[in-house]
Amino acid sequence: MESWRTGIVTSDATNIWVRGHDIRSLMTGATFTDLIVLLHLGRTPSAGERRLLDAILIGVADHGAGAPSCATARMAASSNRESVAAAIGAGVLAIGDDHGGAGTPCMELIAASLAEAAASGLTPAGAAERAVEAAVRDKRRIPGFGHRVHTIDPRVKTMFDMARAEGIAGRGVAFVEALETAIRTRIKPLPINIDGALAAVLHDIGFPPSAARFLFIIGRVAGITAEVAEEYAREKPMRVKLAVEYDGPPPITE
Amino acid sequence: MESWRTGIVTSDATNIWVRGHDIRSLMTGATFTDLIVLLHLGRTPSAGERRLLDAILIGVADHGAGAPSCATARMAASSNRESVAAAIGAGVLAIGDDHGGAGTPCMELIAASLAEAAASGLTPAGAAERAVEAAVRDKRRIPGFGHRVHTIDPRVKTMFDMARAEGIAGRGVAFVEALETAIRTRIKPLPINIDGALAAVLHDIGFPPSAARFLFIIGRVAGITAEVAEEYAREKPMRVKLAVEYDGPPPITE
Amino acid sequence: MESWRTGIVTSDATNIWVRGHDIRSLMTGATFTDLIVLLHLGRTPSAGERRLLDAILIGVADHGAGAPSCATARMAASSNRESVAAAIGAGVLAIGDDHGGAGTPCMELIAASLAEAAASGLTPAGAAERAVEAAVRDKRRIPGFGHRVHTIDPRVKTMFDMARAEGIAGRGVAFVEALETAIRTRIKPLPINIDGALAAVLHDIGFPPSAARFLFIIGRVAGITAEVAEEYAREKPMRVKLAVEYDGPPPITE
Amino acid sequence: MESWRTGIVTSDATNIWVRGHDIRSLMTGATFTDLIVLLHLGRTPSAGERRLLDAILIGVADHGAGAPSCATARMAASSNRESVAAAIGAGVLAIGDDHGGAGTPCMELIAASLAEAAASGLTPAGAAERAVEAAVRDKRRIPGFGHRVHTIDPRVKTMFDMARAEGIAGRGVAFVEALETAIRTRIKPLPINIDGALAAVLHDIGFPPSAARFLFIIGRVAGITAEVAEEYAREKPMRVKLAVEYDGPPPITE
Repeated sequence: MESWRTGIVTSDATNIWVRGHDIRSLMTGATFTDLIVLLHLGRTPSAGERRLLDAILIGVADHGAGAPSCATARMAASSNRESVAAAIGAGVLAIGDDHGGAGTPCMELIAASLAEAAASGLTPAGAAERAVEAAVRDKRRIPGFGHRVHTIDPRVKTMFDMARAEGIAGRGVAFVEALETAIRTRIKPLPINIDGALAAVLHDIGFPPSAARFLFIIGRVAGITAEVAEEYAREKPMRVKLAVEYDGPPPITE
Repeated sequence: MESWRTGIVTSDATNIWVRGHDIRSLMTGATFTDLIVLLHLGRTPSAGERRLLDAILIGVADHGAGAPSCATARMAASSNRESVAAAIGAGVLAIGDDHGGAGTPCMELIAASLAEAAASGLTPAGAAERAVEAAVRDKRRIPGFGHRVHTIDPRVKTMFDMARAEGIAGRGVAFVEALETAIRTRIKPLPINIDGALAAVLHDIGFPPSAARFLFIIGRVAGITAEVAEEYAREKPMRVKLAVEYDGPPPITE
Repeated sequence: MESWRTGIVTSDATNIWVRGHDIRSLMTGATFTDLIVLLHLGRTPSAGERRLLDAILIGVADHGAGAPSCATARMAASSNRESVAAAIGAGVLAIGDDHGGAGTPCMELIAASLAEAAASGLTPAGAAERAVEAAVRDKRRIPGFGHRVHTIDPRVKTMFDMARAEGIAGRGVAFVEALETAIRTRIKPLPINIDGALAAVLHDIGFPPSAARFLFIIGRVAGITAEVAEEYAREKPMRVKLAVEYDGPPPITE
Repeated sequence: MESWRTGIVTSDATNIWVRGHDIRSLMTGATFTDLIVLLHLGRTPSAGERRLLDAILIGVADHGAGAPSCATARMAASSNRESVAAAIGAGVLAIGDDHGGAGTPCMELIAASLAEAAASGLTPAGAAERAVEAAVRDKRRIPGFGHRVHTIDPRVKTMFDMARAEGIAGRGVAFVEALETAIRTRIKPLPINIDGALAAVLHDIGFPPSAARFLFIIGRVAGITAEVAEEYAREKPMRVKLAVEYDGPPPITE
């Protein structure tokens, strides 16, 4: 087999380097959030970027035992306590297009719309109106808007206020705010959700669109571990009893 | 179905609370590491505890593309790019008794040995000698010692130096260091590894033994996401070709 | 990297052999159940063994949408439709000690008890009484007995009747039936469940204890795929709403 | 929580029905392959259909320890032996667009092309030429053709011969064979692979496109279980050592 190439971590018998940084100086001088940025961008964040990243990871970490990823992990933990990894892995597998998944397509929309705006001399507001018009025409949902629980998502204003205070809010935040206005005008009021907010901020920091999904998973795994720990500590195995209604073919008498 | 009980997160239409803390003040005032401690211990850490926790999460985040969890994630990513969660989930599933798994039994050994020492008036060193004697007698490995790559693990001294500088090193660190001495004397020189080091520090902070596994997974998921991102960005699908040697029954001519 | 050894499958540019058998003659002359036996025992089954194996795989394939493995798969499918594998993988992860897991320890109990009986001249009934006595003394549950839904598991009598009709029922079936009698006398009436029944039959066919778990998973994956297919076809994403009751620390006013 | 609807399995205290069929008569009168068809189509197969389904499941069950799904399962088993489900789940997660994934899009292509042919009076051969022309124009690969190991896949001719002998080969098989001819003429010789062959046969039996993926997973899980059993029985934990070449930023001297 040929070698596997990597540019992330190397080690020898007595040391380890992450993106070229000595693990010992990272352990003494960096935060876990710094390391996450280093792993994904190849550089450590500024103080303001670190604060925004901490806010993002905190914002997505846990949304309660009934959130799909947490609930799936707890269901697996209820019937299989052989391996912590099995329960946490099951929770991760519930993260996808409909749960934790809107950040990446929202970042793609931001990048494409702002690139088009730059090419055609549109303002972010003009680009947002055009994006909403296109979504209405093609009957597509705009990723990053609406929530099944929150009428106002408390995390959005907090994150945008922080991004402005830190001087990080740029064209990404402006575009997502313009999208909200254009959606309210053209369709109906739909609040920016956490995926839309983190997409705007990650765009302005310089992350690629794929990072939204990776960061959601990193943050949520923290919450999943706590949910699994609580399941183990408080509940008996096999506690979950779901109400199931059968509406298939009637039992055949033979 | 009856309700699921939880004491971790609650929310209403306009806000979210983690262990009773308003998500907005956590986002503006806490770090991701603070939140991890809050999720697992129900309280935020002191400044010194936060530094140690950051060091632990950084220390376990990534050990290279060939580490079992990272390699398993990359293999899954090589043949299945439909879902980021599938690749990361596969990586998590490689974390178990032989990889990332020694921290929890090491914490159990620390807790049991120190409890026995307290009951019988032994010093940590005396308790360590007794633990090594018992392991030799029962032919058990002592969890938290030895590494297949490192003769000296650079992360151990760093972590213990930090624990002492922050005033956190207590009976857990003393016991694990005494274990190293007793192992060298009674068996052979075997260095403390990262699992043994984090077990000692987590014990002294007040975490239960199960936390070692949860924290390993939280930290390692950060690394796994970066490895999967690199696999997507740099490699073609289905690149991995393993050398396989068949030594089963010879083909039957029919 | 050194080669990986295997004795299961080999192939060249124009053919494939499973345990030495040409894939073409297997495809034309064997059933899927034959292949499962060939993969695990290195030989194809007799007609009677095949019928029993089919009965076992059918018996464990699906127990309804609320069974933990099926429910976990459907929850993952509800929020993540990017990858069929993610939903099915999540369902597999719910299979463990408390769900689908009793067959292997039951086979271990059968093998150990019958070996002890052979060594000490006990009958299966005598060995069963001794095993129940030991379980009562050590406060252990006897694997393979009792069910949270069925007072009588319809699959058990069917399987044992088939095993007798095919001339396969041997000391394994005799021992498990003797266990049921000894449990009723010494503890309370507890019916043999599907795990206990398949353990007895697999023992008598000559499978090792680990096979009980593998065969449960093979059979159940068939059911999980049908449950996931139904979830995709009949339900909208994110349909599952669980009732969650928060009993943690009260929201802090700040 | 509202009830979960299902039309697959129901049970009461003393019996279980699959699609309305009594579990006892299925266990005594059906094969596992019959049950798989019943679960997915709601009816049991004819004798010829059963033979083809057995051939498909046998054909995909295992392609050697180095196949991505098997290799991923073995890597997870190498470092985590706490849970059989974790290793098998990891193997399932490697099944996706580039491995086991071509059957479903091939069935979609068959269905769409034959529908178009029926509407416009084309023969299968004419529809195949049109499909190849469109793929060349749009630079898309045609799913179900080519293999990285086999120049001729031995399973394809076997399967098509069986489909003809059983009277099952219909417009699906004719179309896929016409595709092979059109690809050879218009692009280059590319053999039908197992995914293309099973897609044609499943179409002719009446399965929906999604079934190709589900059946691949059911078959492959049988192989994965055998690979994991061999890993446990023959190998030590943590045996896998990959050659990794670091080409990232040089270690920083600090």
